[in-house]
Amino acid sequence: MKHLLSAKDLSHDEVVMVLDTAEAMAATQRQAVKKLPTLRGKTVVNLFFEDSTRTRLSFEAAAKRLSADVINFSAKGSSLSKGESLKDTAQTLQAMGADAVVVRHSASGAAHLLAHAGWIDAPVLNAGDGTHQHPTQSLLDAMTLRRWYDPTSPGGADGSPAPRGRDLAGARVIIVGDVLHSRVARSNVDMLAALGAEVTLVAPPTLLPVGMENWPCAVSYDLDASIAELRPDAVMMLRVQRERMSAAGGGFFPSPAEYARAYGLDLARRRAMPDHAIVMHPGPMNRGLEITAEAADDPRSRIIEQVGNGVSVRMAALYLLLADEGNQL
Amino acid sequence: MKHLLSAKDLSHDEVVMVLDTAEAMAATQRQAVKKLPTLRGKTVVNLFFEDSTRTRLSFEAAAKRLSADVINFSAKGSSLSKGESLKDTAQTLQAMGADAVVVRHSASGAAHLLAHAGWIDAPVLNAGDGTHQHPTQSLLDAMTLRRWYDPTSPGGADGSPAPRGRDLAGARVIIVGDVLHSRVARSNVDMLAALGAEVTLVAPPTLLPVGMENWPCAVSYDLDASIAELRPDAVMMLRVQRERMSAAGGGFFPSPAEYARAYGLDLARRRAMPDHAIVMHPGPMNRGLEITAEAADDPRSRIIEQVGNGVSVRMAALYLLLADEGNQL
Amino acid sequence: MKHLLSAKDLSHDEVVMVLDTAEAMAATQRQAVKKLPTLRGKTVVNLFFEDSTRTRLSFEAAAKRLSADVINFSAKGSSLSKGESLKDTAQTLQAMGADAVVVRHSASGAAHLLAHAGWIDAPVLNAGDGTHQHPTQSLLDAMTLRRWYDPTSPGGADGSPAPRGRDLAGARVIIVGDVLHSRVARSNVDMLAALGAEVTLVAPPTLLPVGMENWPCAVSYDLDASIAELRPDAVMMLRVQRERMSAAGGGFFPSPAEYARAYGLDLARRRAMPDHAIVMHPGPMNRGLEITAEAADDPRSRIIEQVGNGVSVRMAALYLLLADEGNQL
Repeated sequence: MKHLLSAKDLSHDEVVMVLDTAEAMAATQRQAVKKLPTLRGKTVVNLFFEDSTRTRLSFEAAAKRLSADVINFSAKGSSLSKGESLKDTAQTLQAMGADAVVVRHSASGAAHLLAHAGWIDAPVLNAGDGTHQHPTQSLLDAMTLRRWYDPTSPGGADGSPAPRGRDLAGARVIIVGDVLHSRVARSNVDMLAALGAEVTLVAPPTLLPVGMENWPCAVSYDLDASIAELRPDAVMMLRVQRERMSAAGGGFFPSPAEYARAYGLDLARRRAMPDHAIVMHPGPMNRGLEITAEAADDPRSRIIEQVGNGVSVRMAALYLLLADEGNQL
Repeated sequence: MKHLLSAKDLSHDEVVMVLDTAEAMAATQRQAVKKLPTLRGKTVVNLFFEDSTRTRLSFEAAAKRLSADVINFSAKGSSLSKGESLKDTAQTLQAMGADAVVVRHSASGAAHLLAHAGWIDAPVLNAGDGTHQHPTQSLLDAMTLRRWYDPTSPGGADGSPAPRGRDLAGARVIIVGDVLHSRVARSNVDMLAALGAEVTLVAPPTLLPVGMENWPCAVSYDLDASIAELRPDAVMMLRVQRERMSAAGGGFFPSPAEYARAYGLDLARRRAMPDHAIVMHPGPMNRGLEITAEAADDPRSRIIEQVGNGVSVRMAALYLLLADEGNQL
Repeated sequence: MKHLLSAKDLSHDEVVMVLDTAEAMAATQRQAVKKLPTLRGKTVVNLFFEDSTRTRLSFEAAAKRLSADVINFSAKGSSLSKGESLKDTAQTLQAMGADAVVVRHSASGAAHLLAHAGWIDAPVLNAGDGTHQHPTQSLLDAMTLRRWYDPTSPGGADGSPAPRGRDLAGARVIIVGDVLHSRVARSNVDMLAALGAEVTLVAPPTLLPVGMENWPCAVSYDLDASIAELRPDAVMMLRVQRERMSAAGGGFFPSPAEYARAYGLDLARRRAMPDHAIVMHPGPMNRGLEITAEAADDPRSRIIEQVGNGVSVRMAALYLLLADEGNQL
């Protein structure tokens, strides 16, 4: 593989290989000197058309740990806002010698266009495109799940680095929230299914997309019933955009209070989950909306660990796509 | 010490040790290759909730001279502006592997909260919190004073690097301006007093805080009288916020013109100071308000030198808190 | 030479030497490890008072390829917007140990002022000042022309790296567009003339400056006639500011449609040029205004190549002004 554009592009074995590499990268980060010389002399451009400090920082840290040079390109105030086309921007970065382009864009398909329009030879890493895909997010979620779910043990794993080759066969994962607008949900449904997990999406009907018949997952409107029936190994809460709630509620969209009551994760719901089940969230959290502070800070919450794993999977992706020993994806 | 949060936290001997280290750092900056390998593989995050180009650049230069990786995180346009809590930001940076967090915040106490709420293990360096503290500013001021004031010589020192162990016993320093809103004044009162200097604050009554009884300094409303009576070794001008002046003057707050007349440093006041006395300002200056262009550019002005010393004290602080040979503060 | 402020400051032999150095730099960028240790420990500050992502990225990439540390200083939101003078900013950067300052400013003469007011010892590189000069742009244009024009061959060169010492004696270059507001035009007229090229400026009368009598170039209002009569080796299109067109046209300034019809480069005009002639544009392009998409993407278009040459000439300029083996400009 030349680019990392979509969770859908990766086979079971490719995902496992990326995750094994990410575990190796994580091991290097526990050493005294965290910096690896692997990508010395390579230039990684962070091309961000919408703000995402968290994702940008994670890619920046990952690239610098591999000794790459990082150039941040925020499209605000750039010639793009003066009418330059994506094509010209891409060709400019290529000509400047970018060895990889990490792109975040509000339009679904932007990363794919950048990679496949013939404008650029460098690998493109999709850091989120519209409501479409966010593959490194699903990789970090899979890495986290692999540390806490052991297919051979009903009681889960202990959170230590996952052994090479482990997948998520049989894991039951509930993803809750605004699926309609969520690239995180789409990416995770694809990737977790590829790893053998059973994914259930839980959302109000108005926050589910049409045409989900072919998605490799189940769907439910009822969070409490899903938790009770599925006995999930993990519950992943999606970020909710307050502006997508109705002010009053009771109509087409729920109000924030209605949403929190029906779909928010609180301690009662946390306790209804199996003891070994973990709580996940891609961040940034709206504490008090899709998750209460108590649930976010619960001992089974792995939300902070997800962030650390994000750096590891991005190191792995950059390494596999860029290192001189040859593209390995 | 684990963090650098307040000038108050440092004892006389600790301040002297930091300043001795800063002189050693300054010596390395006069070599052909200014870069030291000391913090290679460490990541320093500049977490700036309010703009301060000058302080950010200084920390960034200091960290890079020590071979650390620097990641700049401006909170504008970040998830913080989407409602993420300081706690979640702190835990995110921690999880990404930040080895130190330099924080600037408009709220007094933010750095202390970040360091002591249990969210983060990495050292926190306060780069200014509200009207509270700005400890590296007071360190650079002390470094500058140490080069120009010799306790054993009434005529001052010659500006060359201070000998190890020198303090400011007996130095007379006047700090002039908007003490009410100034973290620079607070930090300097604490630190200069710890080094044995005699500090006098000069300000209009409306720009002095209440509850100064326990501050280790004297207070005056009259700049000319203070210069004449104290025969200061240094006069430090504070930056004035124009928006804190009244438009008309004559009321509760002075007008800019009234302020400049009563509390601004011009050549006449400069000449009323002893010959060896130095002029200081933390920058950026409002030329024509708290200081005239002539006074700012006077041969006894050390304002530019302060900037260079800022890089040296920040190198020292990062080194002492982060270097592998163990925390030395 | 200590600074790089204006194309006018460079003699024929100096330009040729910079271009020879740029070709050597370009050769290093085709190696496996693109990074050179030359400027290790040096700090290059990008001081940008107006947005120019493209130029900033190019200087940043160039400096990093030479192992310099890069600090980006966008004047927006900085103390400059709080009233700090250029003088104080310059002295601050100097005191922080900047080894070179790359400056972009909307005021003509800003780079010259920064370099010659005595505020700063470090070399100043002009990255564009108002409507005045943009010397690295003209260097990259000259580098591109040198690869495609061979004074000894009427059919042009083949685009491979130019041999040492080549100049542009006898090359015919047409520069088309808003000359009045263009630092690119001014810089190129000076530099290309120094290299022996014959330059013709083509523009509507209202977009030509007064006082061009002493410029070393010809002037025409008629693009089609110029192409037919001059048989140019290169046509360079200038970026047009839409806000400088009139809405209706027909008056003092042309409308965008009138401008495109009379001065835009389309395929018909491209085909009227000699077969070996190349198309240039400093970017970012307004496709459909000063150049059609077809002309921009024509096989003879060298617009992307110009971007890559931009990194090479900036590496050369930084190397020649900063490397320890001594200033060579």
